[in-house]
Amino acid sequence: MIYFDNSATTKPYKEVLDAFVTVSSEYFGNPSSLHGLGGQAEKLLFQARAQVAGHLKVKPSEIFFTSGGTESNNLAIKGAAFLHKNKGRHLITTRVEHASVRATMEQLELNGFEITYLPVEKDGRVKVKEVEKAVKQDTILISIMHVNNEVGTIQPIQEIGELLKTNSSILFHVDAVQGIGKVPIHLHESRVDLCSFSGHKFHGLKGSGALFIREGARISPLFTGGNQEWKIRSGTENVAGAVAMAKALRMTFEKNQSGIERMKKVQSILRAGLSSMEGIQIHTPFEHAAPHILNFSVKGMKAEVFIHALEEKGIYVSTTSACSSKKKSPSKTLLAMGVSEDLAGSAIRLSLSFDNTIEEANTVLIAIEEAVQHLRKVMN
Amino acid sequence: MIYFDNSATTKPYKEVLDAFVTVSSEYFGNPSSLHGLGGQAEKLLFQARAQVAGHLKVKPSEIFFTSGGTESNNLAIKGAAFLHKNKGRHLITTRVEHASVRATMEQLELNGFEITYLPVEKDGRVKVKEVEKAVKQDTILISIMHVNNEVGTIQPIQEIGELLKTNSSILFHVDAVQGIGKVPIHLHESRVDLCSFSGHKFHGLKGSGALFIREGARISPLFTGGNQEWKIRSGTENVAGAVAMAKALRMTFEKNQSGIERMKKVQSILRAGLSSMEGIQIHTPFEHAAPHILNFSVKGMKAEVFIHALEEKGIYVSTTSACSSKKKSPSKTLLAMGVSEDLAGSAIRLSLSFDNTIEEANTVLIAIEEAVQHLRKVMN
Repeated sequence: MIYFDNSATTKPYKEVLDAFVTVSSEYFGNPSSLHGLGGQAEKLLFQARAQVAGHLKVKPSEIFFTSGGTESNNLAIKGAAFLHKNKGRHLITTRVEHASVRATMEQLELNGFEITYLPVEKDGRVKVKEVEKAVKQDTILISIMHVNNEVGTIQPIQEIGELLKTNSSILFHVDAVQGIGKVPIHLHESRVDLCSFSGHKFHGLKGSGALFIREGARISPLFTGGNQEWKIRSGTENVAGAVAMAKALRMTFEKNQSGIERMKKVQSILRAGLSSMEGIQIHTPFEHAAPHILNFSVKGMKAEVFIHALEEKGIYVSTTSACSSKKKSPSKTLLAMGVSEDLAGSAIRLSLSFDNTIEEANTVLIAIEEAVQHLRKVMN
Repeated sequence: MIYFDNSATTKPYKEVLDAFVTVSSEYFGNPSSLHGLGGQAEKLLFQARAQVAGHLKVKPSEIFFTSGGTESNNLAIKGAAFLHKNKGRHLITTRVEHASVRATMEQLELNGFEITYLPVEKDGRVKVKEVEKAVKQDTILISIMHVNNEVGTIQPIQEIGELLKTNSSILFHVDAVQGIGKVPIHLHESRVDLCSFSGHKFHGLKGSGALFIREGARISPLFTGGNQEWKIRSGTENVAGAVAMAKALRMTFEKNQSGIERMKKVQSILRAGLSSMEGIQIHTPFEHAAPHILNFSVKGMKAEVFIHALEEKGIYVSTTSACSSKKKSPSKTLLAMGVSEDLAGSAIRLSLSFDNTIEEANTVLIAIEEAVQHLRKVMN
């Protein structure tokens, strides 16, 4: 099996799962309990928070554990909108965000908020000038992703942050679910107020995530109740999930120096191989692209058919994002980049982990070539 | 160690954790992925849903997986309020709900909704007549818990459901987090529209829960995005958590025939023992009480001090609910039952699992007696 669908989800590291089991079985107390079993769980949660904060170079009190990336994005955006709605009702985002940002903006739009969806260039990047132009008196939040989940384009987070340094009344949210550990991000330097993470995208477990909330930035909770997570996210803490995520993040940062180099090599081999094939168009840009994603279309070929042809060879890849893969509508990201509907309907995403190899890349290239030729024959 | 704090959280069953590990490591695909790894995960999720639905005697399409009880309660109440706010803005609940219901009602109150908090009798029960009287033209939701988490009182869910059978425009939400598997509940017969569950309260894992939504009942999502869970709860599904919860529920229902009998015995031994001690008042009523909770006060003794005294003997119990244990304000439930502030500040909750024994109960009784005598000496 060759698994090239790491942007959909990753296989949890064994050590991560081991940590989860140890915490769940030996330290199963409720962190809110006053007795020692509660205290042990609370301490583990404290350590996990400090570890995550350390890797992100922020304070432990700026890390809030959630159930995943979608919750983090919803909490950041809705939490900001609800709390600051009397200050203003204008939000800015882009046309290439993950569904959990886009759909959340659309839901707010139905509830009296005004949303500006910024266009992107052919490479999928938003222009900082466009952000600047879109800002109005009543803008309360700007939400722009770090790394695009479908094509891998890196957004100019630092430059947008620079722009916002003179404007303290706008919250800046970054969806860093795809980029963390693979593309550097400096939360404080980039004047980021809110930043979303998802455990299962870096070999942690599904059902775990985090939201960075800069000290001083304020949002409303989505879940009210027992006042866990400094009242921002009530509910018994998933201690084992948090510890597992902290471990996954540590392992990711330990591996990423050599890992990113290898990803880049694997990516460039894939890119070179695909470029030499006829009828293939690559959507992932050369510059400002993450090392782990390569998105391309095989002209005239439905993505779904192609995915199943590769699966028969034991290779797992995806159409656009996993979350949108069953909708069958063409990728909004590719359309926003100026790709035609036809071509967007043929788009395939290869997404790597640190553990994918050059040999795998070569095998995948041969398989793609064979699948293209076979399917072309069948179609003619 | 004697663990009598099972209403705060339970120790996951070994088989439950094993299932979690198998799914996480061997079936790690994203259920939304189009390929076979996604398909496998989707199938496991389907099976888990069918299993949970089977135990609750509802349809699989009526079960929505969440991250826990607090999310389920927030989703049910806010989801109903947001969707139906144009039909009416009046909600009814009781004064003895879990914090995740109470705080959610309070948040809605700040946002233009009107909440009726029904009083309870001395035994912690709400009168069906009071519910009937409270219903108004613009009532959109009634939220009443199944089993009280602090004292174990069972609310008249079926009778309230009967009352609502002639009124189809009011949604009926039940927080069944404490009762499931220990006290019968018939969702369809009791005309329940929405019902909350939490995995870690029945030996499943923290970070897993479910919301029952009756076919035809409609609420807004709290998380928007990839449209998982029939658009009601977006976000990559915690497949392993759901499978683990389904297994925990199955094991709970397998054990509960003999388990409940044993709980009742243990509870009655504790009750008899405590009744014979001087200066102890039991708050858990005789009738309409769940078999696993016994709440009492040691007059003149601070609950926190008492908990630590028992902990020194290896016995883990709690003050009120875990979620509220650090607030140090006296239990709202006990106050609503007419208990004085002083006595409420001394309240201790013993909460059992099926695995607690009569021997443990006898040990705990001796420890309580010793602790009371010791602390009384110290205080005088």
